[in-house]
Amino acid sequence: MRAYDIIKKKRNGYSINRSEFAGFLTGYLRGDIPDYQMSAFLMAVFFKGMTREETADMTEIMISSGPVIDLSDIPGQKVDKHSTGGVGDKVSLILAPLAASAGVVVPMMSGRGLGHTGGTLDKLESIPGFRTALNVKEFKKILSKINCAMIGYSDEMAPLDRRLYTLRDVTATVESIPLITSSIMSKKMSEGIEGLVLDVKTGSGAFMKDIEDARILAKAMVDTGNAFGVKTTAVITDMNEPLGMAIGNSMEVLEVIESLKGNGPDDLMEVTLYLGAMMLKTAGIEPEIEEGRKRLAGLIESGAALEKFGQMLELQGGNPKIIERPTLLPHSCLSIDIFSEEKGYIRHIDAEAVGTASMILGAGRERIDSVIDPAAGILLKKKAGDFVDKGEKLCSFCTHDEDFVQKAREKFMGALRIGESPPEKRKMILEVIG
Amino acid sequence: MRAYDIIKKKRNGYSINRSEFAGFLTGYLRGDIPDYQMSAFLMAVFFKGMTREETADMTEIMISSGPVIDLSDIPGQKVDKHSTGGVGDKVSLILAPLAASAGVVVPMMSGRGLGHTGGTLDKLESIPGFRTALNVKEFKKILSKINCAMIGYSDEMAPLDRRLYTLRDVTATVESIPLITSSIMSKKMSEGIEGLVLDVKTGSGAFMKDIEDARILAKAMVDTGNAFGVKTTAVITDMNEPLGMAIGNSMEVLEVIESLKGNGPDDLMEVTLYLGAMMLKTAGIEPEIEEGRKRLAGLIESGAALEKFGQMLELQGGNPKIIERPTLLPHSCLSIDIFSEEKGYIRHIDAEAVGTASMILGAGRERIDSVIDPAAGILLKKKAGDFVDKGEKLCSFCTHDEDFVQKAREKFMGALRIGESPPEKRKMILEVIG
Repeated sequence: MRAYDIIKKKRNGYSINRSEFAGFLTGYLRGDIPDYQMSAFLMAVFFKGMTREETADMTEIMISSGPVIDLSDIPGQKVDKHSTGGVGDKVSLILAPLAASAGVVVPMMSGRGLGHTGGTLDKLESIPGFRTALNVKEFKKILSKINCAMIGYSDEMAPLDRRLYTLRDVTATVESIPLITSSIMSKKMSEGIEGLVLDVKTGSGAFMKDIEDARILAKAMVDTGNAFGVKTTAVITDMNEPLGMAIGNSMEVLEVIESLKGNGPDDLMEVTLYLGAMMLKTAGIEPEIEEGRKRLAGLIESGAALEKFGQMLELQGGNPKIIERPTLLPHSCLSIDIFSEEKGYIRHIDAEAVGTASMILGAGRERIDSVIDPAAGILLKKKAGDFVDKGEKLCSFCTHDEDFVQKAREKFMGALRIGESPPEKRKMILEVIG
Repeated sequence: MRAYDIIKKKRNGYSINRSEFAGFLTGYLRGDIPDYQMSAFLMAVFFKGMTREETADMTEIMISSGPVIDLSDIPGQKVDKHSTGGVGDKVSLILAPLAASAGVVVPMMSGRGLGHTGGTLDKLESIPGFRTALNVKEFKKILSKINCAMIGYSDEMAPLDRRLYTLRDVTATVESIPLITSSIMSKKMSEGIEGLVLDVKTGSGAFMKDIEDARILAKAMVDTGNAFGVKTTAVITDMNEPLGMAIGNSMEVLEVIESLKGNGPDDLMEVTLYLGAMMLKTAGIEPEIEEGRKRLAGLIESGAALEKFGQMLELQGGNPKIIERPTLLPHSCLSIDIFSEEKGYIRHIDAEAVGTASMILGAGRERIDSVIDPAAGILLKKKAGDFVDKGEKLCSFCTHDEDFVQKAREKFMGALRIGESPPEKRKMILEVIG
């Protein structure tokens, strides 16, 4: 079937079968099908969607375009966690050593941030010396030794996904649930895992602004994961406000260390422990979520999780002394305090606006090729529910360029709602799918 | 505004304003915006459409991408006719000399055929020696002398439309009413005309299969033409069966000559005289359609229209002797008769299937770069309403390759419906818009 006919078929709302899809996608990877036909196809998918079978087929063809990591010689259940991305979302950095200290093998691979959302890889790279580009042999060696390792997706993995993502990024075809599903799942299914816990975030700071879309995405990813024999569960969590107090790469690493020391903010720890308990359940270590949470809380209290984090730092070339001396992490030359103009209870801090303010300060990428400042970001002093006096400090901005401050400040102040009474407590864990 | 933002805006259903459109389209023509962004945009237009203003803006930007012909120094009302394309549609070749003989100045520019539909330019080029690539000076000289000339769109006209059409052709984005409208109208509005009569065909052999779509297209083109100050009227005509008896380039030229001699088939003449009368009305020569028809019929009867055709042949380098000696036209080496397998009344001959059969025989282009055989095609002996005996001749196929015959025959026989009674008379002129 010609590329033209495939585009027309999808445009007219029909399904593309496995062999048509394979010819089309591998033809694209080979360079036989030009970008302009692929982008027309992707836009047709944006409007017409893909069936469960098409999504699985596309995922499989993308997996086959690169090598799949074989972890079968490492004992234990290999379970990864993946988040669809949010503001202040440093859960992975706490969770990998925490779940590993409970006996789960966590071969975690992550990507970079884009727009107002952060990326785990950027946070890891803000740790002096930490190597995220390990080869498979090194990766497996560390996994065998301490049960966890955290790296970036390798250039060899799912090359077709990378080609397509680059094209989607410039043709306004990123926001398609089946395309997001096949992109995420093709990478996850290349990791050699037996289980996967998905954190599907919903709310202003998330990709999926409303819960309906989050549910559809969660369902599509769970279906696809299970179709490949990977036990997959999705947890829909709230992302209307930033997670924790720190937004920005090295500041978030610092909050990770504090959390592993037992001083983590409530919202962050609620999400982290729930997802961790789901990983324990997926790995067959603890079937009850509540029991799993308790066990993980105990591993923080005992210092076991922090110890695991220190081991990981050491084995991946990072400086383990950052655990005791936070000043070893990159810190910005400029720290600007932002004060409240009103008195009252903070009712809401909008996640997307805070994420954008942080990006403006240098912590995030406006475009895929932007350079980030590892030290830049926002450290909140107050969160929703807190009382604030007029003139009291709301947060600190960290940046290397004073020119960024005014625009970021406007964005931040616009994100704030102050009222006479505290808001109702926010529910963090919204739904479980799969 | 970045190309990405324009694509996203259209994808989300918003309108693109004049200056955004100008930047985007001229950026594309300059090569600053790549094909893959334009094709994603075109697919978004396919799904989200364009407003009347957007269509006019796009048309204007395409007109401005090339020169506009100035015919203001030629006296008289310049009126062109354009058909959206059909099977056996040789109306233009009769109409240009016919309307010219009634005093309309007809600067007719045409394109090639694609798929099951024929193109006026291909029919003209089947006339030995006939030159369709005149420069503006030659074109105007002939127009001044005899009131009509028939040429192809020049390479300089609306180059942006040509670039876009080539891209649409390979990305399944041809079938979009606003894109069709801006493509046709950008060329027509570059001709320097004061009036335009559009023949919007509907039915199996037309681009617009149902009358609803034909109405929308007709309305969009009429609105756009009038927005540019060109008095535009659309006539929706039936294209469920081939027009006339001949389908194929040189065979159609022969039928044109016969029609100008007064021997034209009823359906063809009904459409031709109606469109011609509409041209007389548009030019302000005869306000009443019925009177215009009579006047045009008289110009055929008197031989004036045929004489005009002969003058045009002569002035454009064609051999005028074809009028008396049809064998001077290209004729195929193979002529195969097709006989009826049943006895009864022909109730229907499907236009699209006959057009496809003719294309298979070599008369049409399957792809934009296919080479056609000017002599190939189908000459019908029977049409809907005729009685046919078993074994009686239905039509003759003309081709240069015997291998084409079987597939074309299957297609043709599939197009035929024979029954016990004749069908109701087909209505040719369905609606007038504008």
